[in-house]
Amino acid sequence: MEKGVNQPFSEHIIEATKSVFAMMAGLDIEKDKVVVSNTDKVKGDVTGVIGLSNDRLKGSIAISFPEELGKSVVANMLSMESEQISEDDLKDGIGEITNMIAGDLNNRIGSIFKMSLPNIITGKGHLISLSNKGTPVAFKFLVNDQTFYILGTFEEKN
Amino acid sequence: MEKGVNQPFSEHIIEATKSVFAMMAGLDIEKDKVVVSNTDKVKGDVTGVIGLSNDRLKGSIAISFPEELGKSVVANMLSMESEQISEDDLKDGIGEITNMIAGDLNNRIGSIFKMSLPNIITGKGHLISLSNKGTPVAFKFLVNDQTFYILGTFEEKN
Repeated sequence: MEKGVNQPFSEHIIEATKSVFAMMAGLDIEKDKVVVSNTDKVKGDVTGVIGLSNDRLKGSIAISFPEELGKSVVANMLSMESEQISEDDLKDGIGEITNMIAGDLNNRIGSIFKMSLPNIITGKGHLISLSNKGTPVAFKFLVNDQTFYILGTFEEKN
Repeated sequence: MEKGVNQPFSEHIIEATKSVFAMMAGLDIEKDKVVVSNTDKVKGDVTGVIGLSNDRLKGSIAISFPEELGKSVVANMLSMESEQISEDDLKDGIGEITNMIAGDLNNRIGSIFKMSLPNIITGKGHLISLSNKGTPVAFKFLVNDQTFYILGTFEEKN
């Protein structure tokens, strides 16, 4: 895959994330503070992973939060306080956000992908990475002065 | 999705795992020692996650190892010693095993799914779970007297 192919997706990933955060959690993501890089590793305490594929491309999106931010985002979604958020609430909420961001992204690019079911990973300071030859794109988002990451990648099938 | 729908996949997941372990790492998985349950959570230190989807079904497979076993499986694949396996070797090897098990499973059921790219998670004692209403199936495998897990799920699209 040419390096450039990820470019349009990157913009759409940012837009999809901003839209889902605003709609689901009433949280504002400042687009001009998003940092995009080509690292293939991000770190977090709670992560949602979802696959996207079609006849030509296969890819995935992982969205990874520090625990405190993950809980406060889910608390916002459920109109609850962070302290009330159980492990199951957190896992279900992060799964839903992951599903919605991937779905919103897919809508923006003409529903070209089939989406898989999200997996949720919990565990202090785990690392999400890739083992492929595509072009990984990592996004660092800032919300409520806290940082979370998205790791996206798409590769042409051979 | 009816509970029974996972039944044929379960058998194929076990066969695919046995086949990939034998072919790639020269390791024998004893089928009669595989424990299947409907838990939706498994634990590990290094995990590969891959999505599978088509027009009717969406799903995912996660394969999760304790670090020592993950390293020894990858060492077998690369004809190296466990102590020589770097973090990158481990991540790439587990990604490859994940990809091959999903691919082998897909072949066994008529290549009905599109596969996504695997994500690799590393971090001591992380938990893999699901946030969907499908039927999760967890497999506990025994190899060289050590245990690893696969968590699989498939859900009908609505």
